[in-house]
Amino acid sequence: MSMVFITRKERFSAAHRLFRPEYSDEQNLKVFGKCSNPNGHGHNYTLLVTVKGEVNEETGFVADLKELSRIITEKVILQLDHRNINLEVAFMKGKLASTENLTISIWQELEAEIKGLGATLHCIRIEETENNMAEYFGK
Amino acid sequence: MSMVFITRKERFSAAHRLFRPEYSDEQNLKVFGKCSNPNGHGHNYTLLVTVKGEVNEETGFVADLKELSRIITEKVILQLDHRNINLEVAFMKGKLASTENLTISIWQELEAEIKGLGATLHCIRIEETENNMAEYFGK
Amino acid sequence: MSMVFITRKERFSAAHRLFRPEYSDEQNLKVFGKCSNPNGHGHNYTLLVTVKGEVNEETGFVADLKELSRIITEKVILQLDHRNINLEVAFMKGKLASTENLTISIWQELEAEIKGLGATLHCIRIEETENNMAEYFGK
Amino acid sequence: MSMVFITRKERFSAAHRLFRPEYSDEQNLKVFGKCSNPNGHGHNYTLLVTVKGEVNEETGFVADLKELSRIITEKVILQLDHRNINLEVAFMKGKLASTENLTISIWQELEAEIKGLGATLHCIRIEETENNMAEYFGK
Amino acid sequence: MSMVFITRKERFSAAHRLFRPEYSDEQNLKVFGKCSNPNGHGHNYTLLVTVKGEVNEETGFVADLKELSRIITEKVILQLDHRNINLEVAFMKGKLASTENLTISIWQELEAEIKGLGATLHCIRIEETENNMAEYFGK
Amino acid sequence: MSMVFITRKERFSAAHRLFRPEYSDEQNLKVFGKCSNPNGHGHNYTLLVTVKGEVNEETGFVADLKELSRIITEKVILQLDHRNINLEVAFMKGKLASTENLTISIWQELEAEIKGLGATLHCIRIEETENNMAEYFGK
Repeated sequence: MSMVFITRKERFSAAHRLFRPEYSDEQNLKVFGKCSNPNGHGHNYTLLVTVKGEVNEETGFVADLKELSRIITEKVILQLDHRNINLEVAFMKGKLASTENLTISIWQELEAEIKGLGATLHCIRIEETENNMAEYFGK
Repeated sequence: MSMVFITRKERFSAAHRLFRPEYSDEQNLKVFGKCSNPNGHGHNYTLLVTVKGEVNEETGFVADLKELSRIITEKVILQLDHRNINLEVAFMKGKLASTENLTISIWQELEAEIKGLGATLHCIRIEETENNMAEYFGK
Repeated sequence: MSMVFITRKERFSAAHRLFRPEYSDEQNLKVFGKCSNPNGHGHNYTLLVTVKGEVNEETGFVADLKELSRIITEKVILQLDHRNINLEVAFMKGKLASTENLTISIWQELEAEIKGLGATLHCIRIEETENNMAEYFGK
Repeated sequence: MSMVFITRKERFSAAHRLFRPEYSDEQNLKVFGKCSNPNGHGHNYTLLVTVKGEVNEETGFVADLKELSRIITEKVILQLDHRNINLEVAFMKGKLASTENLTISIWQELEAEIKGLGATLHCIRIEETENNMAEYFGK
Repeated sequence: MSMVFITRKERFSAAHRLFRPEYSDEQNLKVFGKCSNPNGHGHNYTLLVTVKGEVNEETGFVADLKELSRIITEKVILQLDHRNINLEVAFMKGKLASTENLTISIWQELEAEIKGLGATLHCIRIEETENNMAEYFGK
Repeated sequence: MSMVFITRKERFSAAHRLFRPEYSDEQNLKVFGKCSNPNGHGHNYTLLVTVKGEVNEETGFVADLKELSRIITEKVILQLDHRNINLEVAFMKGKLASTENLTISIWQELEAEIKGLGATLHCIRIEETENNMAEYFGK
């Protein structure tokens, strides 16, 4: 039995703002720095979804990458790409739009769908800039 | 006499929206596609500033890269980074926030300052995503 | 009047072989090296298409990048991606499948279409590997 | 005692085709998509080999990277580079030429040789394109 | 409870030499190859520091990335950047200037400081060139 | 007649120091900043050599890339790689070890050799870090 991990990379460009509505502007600036700018800013986000599973002897695949890409696109990328994360993304409603929270929320969107492909979700990795990244491996 | 070109790369993350205020939402969507989303979106922009000049025999430099970086940062990056280009950037006021217009406006901000370094501005290049880029070489 | 250059990057994965049918295997090996392997090999090619034009005052664009991408995809990428360049690509028929020849042939496929967008084709650049690239600027 | 992991990156360009000989062309297309094109296609593959071990106090090394690179080159890269994986690679004979199967087969080629360097093979990672990757950590 | 891993990337350019003072030049060349060149050579090193922790509900952060970056810069980058690792870096004194030893020494410099941020150091990764990397996860 | 430009990328890792021997340490620090550190520092340099020429109808090549790579390696890379540019590189003797001067000196080393391949040297580009680059196109 041979467990292999496969990763699919997708991208989205979005605006966001880090702030708490109950904070004053000064408090938001102190805690969130320039990321709290009230007019928002944005990023080209890179999303890496890693799934694991036994290699299927008939296909040589852990999972069909076309299907994996379709699921990520429908459930995640179409919600986030060219959107404002604070205002328009249902699965981020009421959550701080941090990279950490994005990884957890995207895990929740994808976990069951990936099970349906016969594989197990292993890691959600988001690169917000070339210097800042977050990873979530589930509970 | 040896003309050499040197390039300094800087980065900024910003939100923007492509739209014309006199257009209906349908018209904006037709012309600007998903970039017209009223809530904005954003990018990690890469800015490449190329200057040319004779190599100074005393220093081996076309221009002092520390000074070049300082000028780009003060005149351009601090205006754009973690900002909303449509709402907060003085040198983009009244202009469509396209990558093309950004290259021209940044040229105007930098041309005289770079002359002050003893070099000549040659090219402003902006990479909006890994797939879309614009370059301006002056009139 | 402000001439700006914009570049769209697309990708294709293809197999090819460098050889002349009238050469012996030894001659092909001597001239083309390991690229003459009779069973073929392949690459992830990167294609960069640069067009130039005045910035449209209404849109802020040199050309509509969605349209530019659609044209490149239909005329070039769909012909090349996951294909064998020697056997299946109409616009490479009877030509050596070198990177140089690819840049010239892709120019011929795209030049008129890009004129139809109101812009002028400036450069076709292909990166065959991270170390080998070719560029064609027209005659 | 200080366990450190070191990784060596190598590259190869190869052609391959995903298909089962007992399938019809329609079945192959359905299961393997455009990767089943009978004339083949190809990629620039990136191979990352990670080994682990205690740091040798005399050399400061987990393993001699020159030796590690030589072993990977002789046992793997020379078999795969500028080859057709389906037709010419002994260690892939009779196996579907998927990225998953490549990671397992390369592990088998390298495991004993790396033990001979005084280190332990930890991971074989292959990046087929910038969007698709597979990793194998052994049984 | 949601454990998330965040990574900050920083860079430094430094000179180093791999050698043992008690070895002859021939011995050093045999063991360390061209890295033993007595006049030194250098690299653009990439440093990736990964820390883990629960996401703070108030901030959405595992740790304040600005603070993490400040700590890495003060304790590590300012010691190494534009320095000779063999001659000028206090925390490398008396150690072979290998990438493996750098990862262990940087771990020791950062572990307690990162605890002070409310997070736990998970991995120190150094990329010496695009082909050679080392990682240390602590004892 | 079809003029095509081809580029070969090579790499070298080297130490250097920017300074003038007749300056005091304070003067060197003022003019060259941290690059004047007396113990040296270093970089992973990327060298891109672009040559132009008509495409040979027999081979489909502007020039044989294997030969181009061999020439760059013998004349330039073997002189610079894992060396101290100030102390060990004959073609940099008596010159400030700036990126600008490197591009000019490498041009002089390669120009005649590339003519021997039947092509014309067009550009020497050196990337010293991911942020700093220089290009020389000849007199």
